[in-house]
Amino acid sequence: MPQQDPFGPDTLPYGVFTTADAPEQRRIGVRYGERVLDAGAIATVRGSAHAELLVAPDLGPLLAAGRPVWQAVRAEVRDWISEEPFLLPLADVTLHLPFEVADYVDFYASEHHATNVGRIFRPDGDALTPNWKHLPIGYHGRAGTVVVTGTEVVRPSGQRKTPADDAPTFGPSRRLDIEAEVGFVVGTPSSAPVPLDGFRDHVFGVCLVNDWSARDLQAWEYVPLGPFLGKSFATSVSAWITPLDAFDDARTAPPERTHPLLPYLDDSAAEPAGLDIRIDVALNGEPLTSPPFSTMYWTAAQQLAHMTVNGATLRTGDLFASGTVSGPEEHQLGCLLELTKGKGPFLQDGDEVTITAWAPGPDGSRIGLGEVTGRIAPAAPAADTATDAGAP
Amino acid sequence: MPQQDPFGPDTLPYGVFTTADAPEQRRIGVRYGERVLDAGAIATVRGSAHAELLVAPDLGPLLAAGRPVWQAVRAEVRDWISEEPFLLPLADVTLHLPFEVADYVDFYASEHHATNVGRIFRPDGDALTPNWKHLPIGYHGRAGTVVVTGTEVVRPSGQRKTPADDAPTFGPSRRLDIEAEVGFVVGTPSSAPVPLDGFRDHVFGVCLVNDWSARDLQAWEYVPLGPFLGKSFATSVSAWITPLDAFDDARTAPPERTHPLLPYLDDSAAEPAGLDIRIDVALNGEPLTSPPFSTMYWTAAQQLAHMTVNGATLRTGDLFASGTVSGPEEHQLGCLLELTKGKGPFLQDGDEVTITAWAPGPDGSRIGLGEVTGRIAPAAPAADTATDAGAP
Repeated sequence: MPQQDPFGPDTLPYGVFTTADAPEQRRIGVRYGERVLDAGAIATVRGSAHAELLVAPDLGPLLAAGRPVWQAVRAEVRDWISEEPFLLPLADVTLHLPFEVADYVDFYASEHHATNVGRIFRPDGDALTPNWKHLPIGYHGRAGTVVVTGTEVVRPSGQRKTPADDAPTFGPSRRLDIEAEVGFVVGTPSSAPVPLDGFRDHVFGVCLVNDWSARDLQAWEYVPLGPFLGKSFATSVSAWITPLDAFDDARTAPPERTHPLLPYLDDSAAEPAGLDIRIDVALNGEPLTSPPFSTMYWTAAQQLAHMTVNGATLRTGDLFASGTVSGPEEHQLGCLLELTKGKGPFLQDGDEVTITAWAPGPDGSRIGLGEVTGRIAPAAPAADTATDAGAP
Repeated sequence: MPQQDPFGPDTLPYGVFTTADAPEQRRIGVRYGERVLDAGAIATVRGSAHAELLVAPDLGPLLAAGRPVWQAVRAEVRDWISEEPFLLPLADVTLHLPFEVADYVDFYASEHHATNVGRIFRPDGDALTPNWKHLPIGYHGRAGTVVVTGTEVVRPSGQRKTPADDAPTFGPSRRLDIEAEVGFVVGTPSSAPVPLDGFRDHVFGVCLVNDWSARDLQAWEYVPLGPFLGKSFATSVSAWITPLDAFDDARTAPPERTHPLLPYLDDSAAEPAGLDIRIDVALNGEPLTSPPFSTMYWTAAQQLAHMTVNGATLRTGDLFASGTVSGPEEHQLGCLLELTKGKGPFLQDGDEVTITAWAPGPDGSRIGLGEVTGRIAPAAPAADTATDAGAP
């Protein structure tokens, strides 16, 4: 294994796979380089106390088991990881959505992104709304349309109206976009608010997210209750969930807070809770942008604290995403809306977008996140769209 | 049974109950007056072909079975409904959330409500946003905090900032409100858009919803991505799901459309898709308001068509609610924000809110919806709130 392989022994992300000879039998795997450890099989053979969690058809039972178990299982996996008979070629397995998404929440935590988008969507107002520096703005998305990497994304249709139009028209989105994000997977449920320092007890791991966005649908619909159909058609996530414990060497201080924070969000005295995750986005195999997660104004710990401070319960399988990651530079913007200053071009049918990322690990190693990729399929034919050749 | 009993033989709503002697054994019941038919028990004894659906611990399998099965089971239940040995007193059972909520979507379909709230939240702008008459505005809510009637609602805490405040403060909501709504429970899943005339094939039944809302949290957070913590702490639903087929005599034309609709929403040539459901809200046992569901501008069929027109898939257990039901008259407004013109008083600790409703059935009968009730418990103590005596 090359020294810089982001899926070395310090990463060990979990996923769910099937093989061609048993396509109905979902199994938990751990990625190691370009191979997958059949975790359930080796746990059973070795008589692991956690075998039951690892022979499950998805990560649900492991997620629910809590941090001490996560750590014990990770230690076992590290011992098992080179056992040849249990390693399958990655190329030979089919990967699946690794857990059932309970609630999906999407945040808006990059100051650069929020500022850039605010200027485009609300040219006559302040770029940042007055609340933005006081709380991590977020909203609930559609859990049922979270799909695993590799799933084809059909161009959505819907209502589009530009300021120049007298009335909305119906048809395929003409402004289909990506949003490169980092997602956090909740393991341990909670019926009480999770304080900043409770983050690691509740969050199991980290994934990559592409929050596909139809900007024309979104712009017309989103006032006053927020994004709906412009986002709900598909959200792609990586097949691998990298345990939070793998990111210990990637911790970094978030940007300086320009406004005083209320106590439940005040992380000035806490351990650095930002993560130095370096994201690369490719469009049809060509590098498109490289957003740095370390620039996010709000940390995932703050997002979790905020999301639960009103008493909202947390369930195993809740997924929350950071919002588009955009850095201050032109080559660090996390969506086409920003990269093209709202002018496009946006995604064409057949375009394929791939998001990859890594973070620094111990001793110069790299901690990988699973890639998330998706290809745009043409809009579904519909009676309403028959006369509309609006797709780009 | 009195002739006007809203839970007579034409209603027959489904729920999930336990009894004191078997508190772990969840069973499917059908309400009949003040009694509950043990549907699984009689289906088993009678050798029903659908017994397996009715001995389940929740309504999930029945919901997924599809409309022909719903109709067949309803016909069987009607035959069984007076069988004394299988009827338990309603007062002796504990009712539970009758199905696992997949995604929860909340609409905003009352023109009166949207106009009234728009005037209060955006006094300097148009009351209705430009999109309002073109599409049924909605957003995703938190499925994990949908709770069954009778569940205590703890006053949420969060950030509150009035225009007069320099900065937000943290503490219990001072403007805790109700929203009287009607909810629709999805049975048959779909991976394609559901046209207006597909509504009955996918929607199993109807419930009542109280979409508790913390107006101060909501007002501060909701621009630009919509309501989040102001709504996510709790949404109460009735324990009984009344089958859609029970509302055949309650169909009524929706209000005249003042703007032309795009084909996928145009119901001008369709069967009347409004529902004459008459809602009553009581506060601490005193009548508070009586919102008429027949006044809703957007129908549930339009909401479902809109929600799926972008290709968003539909799952068994998806729940969508109408948005606050408000009529044109003072005594028909569906929330305290409107009833008090934004001035309050809002809910006090200890207040109990009960929503009931019925619709006209055949031959002068009444079709009941299950009541939804909730009592406000004081805010949970928290370090942040120790110095804040902000609760009303």
